[in-house]
Amino acid sequence: MTSPAEKAQSLTPSAIHAAYALIQPYIHRTPLLTCKTLDTIASTPQTPEALVGTPFEGQTPACPKFHFFFKCENLQRIGAFKARGAFHALLRLIEERGEEEVKRRGVITHSSGNHAQALALAASTLNVPAYIVMPRISTPSKIAGTRSHGAEVIFSGSTSVEREAVVAEIQAKTNAILVPPYDDFNIICGQGTTALELEAQYAEQQAGSKTLNAVITPIGGGGLNAGVATYFSDKQTKVFGAEPSFEGADDCRRGLLAGKRVEAVSTLTIGDGLRTPVGLLNWEVISNKEKVEGVYAVTEEQIKAAMRLVLERMKVFVEPSAVVGLAVCLFDEDFRRLVEREGGDEGWDMAIVFSGGNTTVEAISKLYG
Amino acid sequence: MTSPAEKAQSLTPSAIHAAYALIQPYIHRTPLLTCKTLDTIASTPQTPEALVGTPFEGQTPACPKFHFFFKCENLQRIGAFKARGAFHALLRLIEERGEEEVKRRGVITHSSGNHAQALALAASTLNVPAYIVMPRISTPSKIAGTRSHGAEVIFSGSTSVEREAVVAEIQAKTNAILVPPYDDFNIICGQGTTALELEAQYAEQQAGSKTLNAVITPIGGGGLNAGVATYFSDKQTKVFGAEPSFEGADDCRRGLLAGKRVEAVSTLTIGDGLRTPVGLLNWEVISNKEKVEGVYAVTEEQIKAAMRLVLERMKVFVEPSAVVGLAVCLFDEDFRRLVEREGGDEGWDMAIVFSGGNTTVEAISKLYG
Repeated sequence: MTSPAEKAQSLTPSAIHAAYALIQPYIHRTPLLTCKTLDTIASTPQTPEALVGTPFEGQTPACPKFHFFFKCENLQRIGAFKARGAFHALLRLIEERGEEEVKRRGVITHSSGNHAQALALAASTLNVPAYIVMPRISTPSKIAGTRSHGAEVIFSGSTSVEREAVVAEIQAKTNAILVPPYDDFNIICGQGTTALELEAQYAEQQAGSKTLNAVITPIGGGGLNAGVATYFSDKQTKVFGAEPSFEGADDCRRGLLAGKRVEAVSTLTIGDGLRTPVGLLNWEVISNKEKVEGVYAVTEEQIKAAMRLVLERMKVFVEPSAVVGLAVCLFDEDFRRLVEREGGDEGWDMAIVFSGGNTTVEAISKLYG
Repeated sequence: MTSPAEKAQSLTPSAIHAAYALIQPYIHRTPLLTCKTLDTIASTPQTPEALVGTPFEGQTPACPKFHFFFKCENLQRIGAFKARGAFHALLRLIEERGEEEVKRRGVITHSSGNHAQALALAASTLNVPAYIVMPRISTPSKIAGTRSHGAEVIFSGSTSVEREAVVAEIQAKTNAILVPPYDDFNIICGQGTTALELEAQYAEQQAGSKTLNAVITPIGGGGLNAGVATYFSDKQTKVFGAEPSFEGADDCRRGLLAGKRVEAVSTLTIGDGLRTPVGLLNWEVISNKEKVEGVYAVTEEQIKAAMRLVLERMKVFVEPSAVVGLAVCLFDEDFRRLVEREGGDEGWDMAIVFSGGNTTVEAISKLYG
């Protein structure tokens, strides 16, 4: 077996280009939106009161300047970037094993929701049977979405360990081929096409006159962040990651601090797409300082505040997981100082990946009711 | 004084073009979006159960085919189409009375919210003082939005009569010039630019090969519908209107049935932008069968169901008032039969104006919690 460190060597920008060529007919080129209101809010210093209880208490709040470019993967097929990775993984599987074998055995995965729907869509599009293991407490819209693509849904507990046990059980019965949700070369390459697209769209909008300073994405299992970091690894654009801090969901940030990947997480953060620990291969990329500049964590209240702004002011429907990157830009004083320092008067042109929009009005009612 | 019937003669497509030339630098060209999921849902017959208790009970549900084009005025400045009319009215006022007089006296209006924010924005942009009379029960985000543009907000009761009384009181003190929310030639022409833009965008998307079959807009005071109907009055595109039926909010539909405009309405429909009776001038246009083909009404539950689909499936953030047109397409069996009959196998290319997106997560919690 190739080790994660060896496999990570093959994660190159050209692997992302190759993935894009393969999946392009199946995915949406989601819009890259701007929003002056959010630029203004993020470019206004926080109040001194907001810094009380933080290491920055009593200091002058930072005054960074942001020009945001929102990559709206909530408008991707199945409502999340996961469609990219799922189509890529399945197309490669068919390429490698042959259509006959893949159709005969089918595919299986476990997912808190978006990867489940994504694999279900890819499988139904390519006429492959799909078995999806989902936590019992998944958002009902995600369960319904998965079933609507003809996949068979099997329920499990919430932790990675519980999910994997159910997967093994079903595999023993069906011989279905596992398509992992994030810790996988082909999944990472598929998710990385988000970066390729947003860079091209940014260049179109700026008429090629500027370079994108930075991009921030959510980190759950880390497929999106690792893919985006791979794509930008030979470019000047800096890559950052964002996580919820609730009940230790910031496993990646904590792992980076400790110099060692955190292997298990048990959290019920409202960012339900971000409850998993970072995968082994993903960790190889994200822990590489030359690829990812830093990972920041935000509280549940900060996620809610960012989500409210996106809904009410930008009028774009997103799920809580999608806005952790924006929440870092708005509320993380450490990150805001970095942007003030490095961006100066011009500020940063900064892409924020809205990873998905699969939530419900009932879930919103629970959050804000 | 010119009568409404005489004034209506001047409401021509060229008046809309003239308005557009004037306001274009100040407004957004909002996107015209499509959504296959909503096309599919609307093109699926209703269940027989859904027709129980309606005049269509026991009959075969209609099978219309819709291809929707959503004009997203929720992404307009201040989050609603009202920015068009307000800028147009104020620019004309300055043209007619001179900048000095308008700046000295200021402008005043009453509005349930979106016109308030729109006039506040136009006034602050053009450096004119603004007094805004708002019902005490207006959505907090709309009150905050109005104040954020530097306008002075004065509260009143909810009915048109109560609002107008407060306006008169403030006018007596300030000599401010009234900019009516909807019953006004310049306002109607401004709102009508929505139609001009969406027709151009439709032509771009279809490469000019087809004609838009129909457009439906919400009707509150009727400015948007009258403006859109004016623009399309010399074209083949049919114009329809949509209202809530709750507590008699469907004053326009009832007026058309009775052959006489309904003069007062007192309703607390969740479509809070649609609580006003149709204006006199607007009525002249909307009651003209050559301009508006028909007006339909939907229940509060139907509005909620349509809004849920737009939020959860289309991922676009809209206010309840915005979706009454979509609700008609989804649930009004009479209208669905018309589209089945006239659209046949090809169906209708149908534009739906999403009038605004000014709601809050708290309001959504109240609706669905």
